[in-house]
Amino acid sequence: MKIYQYLLIFIFFSGCSSDFDSDVEVFDQQTFKWSLVTTWPKNYPGLGMAPERLADLVNEMSNGRLQITVYGAGELVPAMGVFDAVSSGSVEMGHSGAYYWKGKIPAAQFFAGVPFGLTAKEMNAWLHRGGGLEIWRELYEPFNIYPIPCGNTGTQMFGWFNKEINSVADLKGLKMRIPGVGGEVFKRAGGNPVNIPGGELFTAMQTGTIDAVEWVGPFNDLAFGFQQVAKYYYYPGWHEPGSTLELLINNDAWNSLPPDLQAIVEVAAKAVNQDLLDEYTASNNRALKELVETHGAVLKKLPDDVIEEFRQISKEIINESLSDPTVKLVHQSFQDFLSEVSNYHAIAEDAFVEARSNSD
Amino acid sequence: MKIYQYLLIFIFFSGCSSDFDSDVEVFDQQTFKWSLVTTWPKNYPGLGMAPERLADLVNEMSNGRLQITVYGAGELVPAMGVFDAVSSGSVEMGHSGAYYWKGKIPAAQFFAGVPFGLTAKEMNAWLHRGGGLEIWRELYEPFNIYPIPCGNTGTQMFGWFNKEINSVADLKGLKMRIPGVGGEVFKRAGGNPVNIPGGELFTAMQTGTIDAVEWVGPFNDLAFGFQQVAKYYYYPGWHEPGSTLELLINNDAWNSLPPDLQAIVEVAAKAVNQDLLDEYTASNNRALKELVETHGAVLKKLPDDVIEEFRQISKEIINESLSDPTVKLVHQSFQDFLSEVSNYHAIAEDAFVEARSNSD
Repeated sequence: MKIYQYLLIFIFFSGCSSDFDSDVEVFDQQTFKWSLVTTWPKNYPGLGMAPERLADLVNEMSNGRLQITVYGAGELVPAMGVFDAVSSGSVEMGHSGAYYWKGKIPAAQFFAGVPFGLTAKEMNAWLHRGGGLEIWRELYEPFNIYPIPCGNTGTQMFGWFNKEINSVADLKGLKMRIPGVGGEVFKRAGGNPVNIPGGELFTAMQTGTIDAVEWVGPFNDLAFGFQQVAKYYYYPGWHEPGSTLELLINNDAWNSLPPDLQAIVEVAAKAVNQDLLDEYTASNNRALKELVETHGAVLKKLPDDVIEEFRQISKEIINESLSDPTVKLVHQSFQDFLSEVSNYHAIAEDAFVEARSNSD
Repeated sequence: MKIYQYLLIFIFFSGCSSDFDSDVEVFDQQTFKWSLVTTWPKNYPGLGMAPERLADLVNEMSNGRLQITVYGAGELVPAMGVFDAVSSGSVEMGHSGAYYWKGKIPAAQFFAGVPFGLTAKEMNAWLHRGGGLEIWRELYEPFNIYPIPCGNTGTQMFGWFNKEINSVADLKGLKMRIPGVGGEVFKRAGGNPVNIPGGELFTAMQTGTIDAVEWVGPFNDLAFGFQQVAKYYYYPGWHEPGSTLELLINNDAWNSLPPDLQAIVEVAAKAVNQDLLDEYTASNNRALKELVETHGAVLKKLPDDVIEEFRQISKEIINESLSDPTVKLVHQSFQDFLSEVSNYHAIAEDAFVEARSNSD
């Protein structure tokens, strides 16, 4: 397996005085040049920089043996064409979010996040130490894709609304960009959900195509400039408690890598998974402050009965989807983990945070 | 910089009938064999497996070019001799916790964790995206050590007590294994803190040398078998909200590595940092359940006035230590980050967790 490491030199001398024959055989290490397509605008803060960082780390660690070129949404394929491009092998890699593929794989949403589901820390633990990733890989296998968790945004904001939400009735007919199960919940609560790629959201808000927009959170929302459109109400989330991003790798490309490069990609993805969450954690409050204090975003809390309505509908939708045996399997694993982990956190971290919050 | 990578073979032929001069340049890669000493028992679950995992990942990614042998506490150097061994260069690497070195570097404790400080997620964000790691590296530089965060236990339990704690008075004279600032707080609250390495704790409890023991949390406490000693009261923590473990590297050894191996070590450490937290997150509740249901540990909440006393003393101790300019610098960075991050989390993740907890 390690034959490529060895540089063998055969030097044959025949003759000497007259005939000289030199045969130098060099086993060098193969260099791979891969393309990575993403659902995010090129170089977009947070989300879009995660695959760039991955490419840098892999390049450094492999000493240039695996070079990854990152393409933003629309450069090679559309934002929502990432999964198919990797599946077909037209590119080797992609970076996206699993809930975008709910049309193909209904259970995929659990690997990004579901309403009232797992936080970032819990998602990481479920995926890496609770069996989640194994199931995820089985589910993507028929599509010839090998997924690796690669980034987490932390708890997302519900988003921006052009009017105040004082009751469930206020949701009626509201046209909102909100993907995944969150969007389905919103629909049953009376809203009108649409899925629009990130890069088109500002214009959609500006032209009044939508009344409300869910994107990520203060750090990313500020970067898109939503605050420039109009005075908006800004609500915390319930729908994406800790959204995991995915690195997608075409299986044939993956199998063509030697084990050391496979290890380098796996470990780099894990480091980026952590790094992105660190960046969101460090950046969100500063951005929220700027949104509220400088740009006049009005931060509000959702009324309890609206939260309760969302919770009931979320349960309803998930229960209905359990008729799909794959959803049932993933849901069981997810839900078992959730009840275990929240039991312990209730007495440990959550209790601590509450005690700490009284300290100032 | 990469001259070491090159293995130069000069083959000179002088004589022979005609003069022939061949100069073949061969690029080979140097192999490094390093030793890593730890503060933990060999192969101890969680803590002790983190450096083993690091060694495995580095070995895989470097294709055997950097081989790390891990030694448990006492195998090469004592548990508390890790820092000095790495500093002197008698070994290349160590794995420990920064609060063990408060005697040498008072500010070091902030890099492991302080009472009422940052949770695991917040520590990661402060260290990697909030300037914490840069300060840490400056502080260890005079000791010829390059630190990398490498593991987090999550919120630790206050620990095991041979009697119930109903008031501050109950702490009086209690002999407890509790290191770091937590130990100092405990002392001022009337207790008698001692620092004993993990491997000696079971015996210390069994022989009655100590009345109480702080170690990590359910997963590790179960592994040590504390529940076998006697019926104990088990209390959640306030003193180590998200303890970071450290990978220590001797600076000269670090500088001898080519850039790709340095990148491999940095990224592997980050992946292990994440992995350990995932493991604790996934394992703690299951272990707690076993401790309580099978072994009769009595899970209790600390009375509010005891928490309040600990909080006041923690503040007092930290304020006093600000006369040290290094502590002041680190504390400022830590505290600024804490107030920013807790503001955002209060409206985002914490609010979500509260909303979720009503859902069952």
